[in-house]
Amino acid sequence: MILERLKYVKAIFLDVDGVLTDGSIFVNEAGEQLRTFNVKDGYAIQLAIKKEIQICIITGGRSEGVLKRFQGLGVKEIHMGISDKLTVMEFILDKYQINKREALFIGDDIPDLACMKSVGIAAAPQDAVEEIKAISHYISSKEGGRGVVRDVVEKVLKLQNKWNADFSVKSV
Amino acid sequence: MILERLKYVKAIFLDVDGVLTDGSIFVNEAGEQLRTFNVKDGYAIQLAIKKEIQICIITGGRSEGVLKRFQGLGVKEIHMGISDKLTVMEFILDKYQINKREALFIGDDIPDLACMKSVGIAAAPQDAVEEIKAISHYISSKEGGRGVVRDVVEKVLKLQNKWNADFSVKSV
Amino acid sequence: MILERLKYVKAIFLDVDGVLTDGSIFVNEAGEQLRTFNVKDGYAIQLAIKKEIQICIITGGRSEGVLKRFQGLGVKEIHMGISDKLTVMEFILDKYQINKREALFIGDDIPDLACMKSVGIAAAPQDAVEEIKAISHYISSKEGGRGVVRDVVEKVLKLQNKWNADFSVKSV
Amino acid sequence: MILERLKYVKAIFLDVDGVLTDGSIFVNEAGEQLRTFNVKDGYAIQLAIKKEIQICIITGGRSEGVLKRFQGLGVKEIHMGISDKLTVMEFILDKYQINKREALFIGDDIPDLACMKSVGIAAAPQDAVEEIKAISHYISSKEGGRGVVRDVVEKVLKLQNKWNADFSVKSV
Repeated sequence: MILERLKYVKAIFLDVDGVLTDGSIFVNEAGEQLRTFNVKDGYAIQLAIKKEIQICIITGGRSEGVLKRFQGLGVKEIHMGISDKLTVMEFILDKYQINKREALFIGDDIPDLACMKSVGIAAAPQDAVEEIKAISHYISSKEGGRGVVRDVVEKVLKLQNKWNADFSVKSV
Repeated sequence: MILERLKYVKAIFLDVDGVLTDGSIFVNEAGEQLRTFNVKDGYAIQLAIKKEIQICIITGGRSEGVLKRFQGLGVKEIHMGISDKLTVMEFILDKYQINKREALFIGDDIPDLACMKSVGIAAAPQDAVEEIKAISHYISSKEGGRGVVRDVVEKVLKLQNKWNADFSVKSV
Repeated sequence: MILERLKYVKAIFLDVDGVLTDGSIFVNEAGEQLRTFNVKDGYAIQLAIKKEIQICIITGGRSEGVLKRFQGLGVKEIHMGISDKLTVMEFILDKYQINKREALFIGDDIPDLACMKSVGIAAAPQDAVEEIKAISHYISSKEGGRGVVRDVVEKVLKLQNKWNADFSVKSV
Repeated sequence: MILERLKYVKAIFLDVDGVLTDGSIFVNEAGEQLRTFNVKDGYAIQLAIKKEIQICIITGGRSEGVLKRFQGLGVKEIHMGISDKLTVMEFILDKYQINKREALFIGDDIPDLACMKSVGIAAAPQDAVEEIKAISHYISSKEGGRGVVRDVVEKVLKLQNKWNADFSVKSV
């Protein structure tokens, strides 16, 4: 049963575009990219790190902005420009001695498929592609960039009795 | 009764992300942040200040853009990078000799909880988190960044007979 | 009857924030503002100018970006930083010898009220404030920044038999 | 029958504003334009190019950002600042010896009309203007910038048995 598995989650893997963002990429005249992140997701990520859940970002894109945003929130594992996400995920799990059954992956598109088939819990935003929704254990009512990460992380922390108002965590 | 209390509001406290914005934070390659504000909120804030309602901003984030936007609208009390919002709110109320019962707070997430439990009126955008909605006296039909501040400030000014077309106030 | 009056429209006055935009103002760390315009509105504005409808912009804000965007589309009358919009509108109408009955104004908030009460046709986006909708002759199904200007300008041009596929007009 | 024709599509022509974007143009104080693209569209475009579908962009606007975004995805034919799109499309089809019946065009507004009447399959986003929807063979449930290109390209590739998880294609 899914809720049972959430209790044992030790690592949460996040795709960027379409999960931490709504899939939009802003491009200016210089070709520079901007992305939009969600402050409620930011709160949940900070709290999860405080509670010693491993937060890991694996994305196909490359962006200094992504790096700075999530380093600022305290994320240690940020892997960019990745086409074979499964190998990177396995490397991280091995590094921290975490079992795949204890890993949760939130993804929204084909490049996330192999990882999501491999982990204990696969979660998807409401607007993920059909191939992803078909193999997900949990489909959030929230869309990418609109709180899907907050929704999933909050569920994990609540089931582990780690969700509470920690006033040292800011909403940023 | 809530409407009754609105008549006595002398100070309105505003969170930034998720209240004055929709919770989105734009990040460019340099890691610089951009936020999106609402022009209808801007109109209401300017009018409230003219009518001598104290407008105060307390936010966990730090942003030159936030500072410039709201200084430009005439807001005097802008407090950024705050984790303990309650202490800051109490300091401001003390400074202006305003009672907590005469204060209104619009917030959307956990870091706003302590302030909202403490003031005379707690108001929330439609898309606030459940913990906040549960303790709010008024939940607006408007979302964060989509007019919640205009909605609440307009209600306060109307009940105090201070809402009128002041043609020196621009919509900016 | 409204449709009848649209036939005689010679000048269309446009507010910026909430009409040509959705009311959002992006602010970066330097305090610089960005606004979002709609390409379908841009097409209609260019075509209207070609058909010798006078397009005039009157706004409370000040922005080089607004100036450049609409100068680029061929708009001659762009008035920024205006608090008394009525005086400016009357000045323009006088300059071009156009009667108020032949003027249409699209506005969304209190600062547009005096102009809209004064012209032959007052039009509003779906998300205008109540005071504006109450006195509008036409309320578009489109929201500000989401095509309200296209909708209204297209209606005017069609009734004047001036709407056609002019292939020299680009969608920009 | 439409689905039959999709099997023979060799070239896909794309408008930019309103198709690859939601029609919004961001303008900063310097008058510089920013546009928002969709990462799911980006995945489909890359995969189509790998499968030797000719992807061609024809737009009325001019933007270094558009050029860089789509060159980065591997698009060879990017034509900007075009008012007579039909002549450009015919030039490209001639260059690659592709018949009009084997061409698909996704457009949303009047400047796309001539091309769309001329190709084998005309496709439109849900929020295209009425004139375009009236002559389209396929109207997507997706809006411009919200996945219409992904939807159409995916349908073409699936019918040609070219849609599969190619792990060398990143979601960017």
